[in-house]
Amino acid sequence: MNKSENMKDKQLSVSAIKEGTVIDHVPASALFKVVSILKLDELDTMITIGNNLGSKKLGKKGIIKLSRVFFRDDEINKIALVAPCAKLNIIRDYEVVEKKIVEIPDEIIGIAKCVNPKCITNNENVTTRFTVVSKAEVKLKCHYCEKITNRDELQIT
Amino acid sequence: MNKSENMKDKQLSVSAIKEGTVIDHVPASALFKVVSILKLDELDTMITIGNNLGSKKLGKKGIIKLSRVFFRDDEINKIALVAPCAKLNIIRDYEVVEKKIVEIPDEIIGIAKCVNPKCITNNENVTTRFTVVSKAEVKLKCHYCEKITNRDELQIT
Repeated sequence: MNKSENMKDKQLSVSAIKEGTVIDHVPASALFKVVSILKLDELDTMITIGNNLGSKKLGKKGIIKLSRVFFRDDEINKIALVAPCAKLNIIRDYEVVEKKIVEIPDEIIGIAKCVNPKCITNNENVTTRFTVVSKAEVKLKCHYCEKITNRDELQIT
Repeated sequence: MNKSENMKDKQLSVSAIKEGTVIDHVPASALFKVVSILKLDELDTMITIGNNLGSKKLGKKGIIKLSRVFFRDDEINKIALVAPCAKLNIIRDYEVVEKKIVEIPDEIIGIAKCVNPKCITNNENVTTRFTVVSKAEVKLKCHYCEKITNRDELQIT
């Protein structure tokens, strides 16, 4: 094995993101749920993910860098369900031009499962739909059966 | 925004992996299926993922670096279902000590869905089980209903 191959293996350096979105301070346990919520597996642009990185705030955190991808507020706020303290850096021309936080929306469509096994959404092909009755405690009220799904019962579809 | 913050945003450099496994040459469309097959969302060790990176061989590829994680052959070979040309670099003390390829196993348990909607595995709580009847063409024969699931019908559970 030659020396340059050695150097390559020592460090995964990712080219600077010229423009795009960095999602930081994702709890490590939520990283792949964020991938699922934002459908990042369907992207064809460059994406870098680090997970279980050390974090003073979170203990362990994840970070996602998305080249040439930007989100509307309603798109990115969905991740607040699982990553309420996530921080967004919007990058243009290699510079951070905007910093944003995420906020749980008032309604959640098609992301979370209803905790009630008898709910129509768990038995028919009906997209889940919830009103957020408590943003602080992440309590979701099902539009169909009206049962409350709590934070610790939350499963991402 | 200060200068050091600027520098941080320009490059995601990940500390050298002292020991672990690098999975390279994963087709971009298969990257998150590999995450699912290997249950990488359940890890608590550091993981770095790049996807849709340029590749002469594959057009676009994904790469996964797993700190302090090693796989038995039977564990890692499962990914050959979706990433038949994946290359593994085993890292010890910052050096590549071994290079491996993956090979589709003879039997696939609990990873793929049976293409037959009437199969018991799609209707009862029964773990899927297949014999690989063609490794070259990725043809899986269901242990229960004996239907063949082809490569293009393959869905990861």
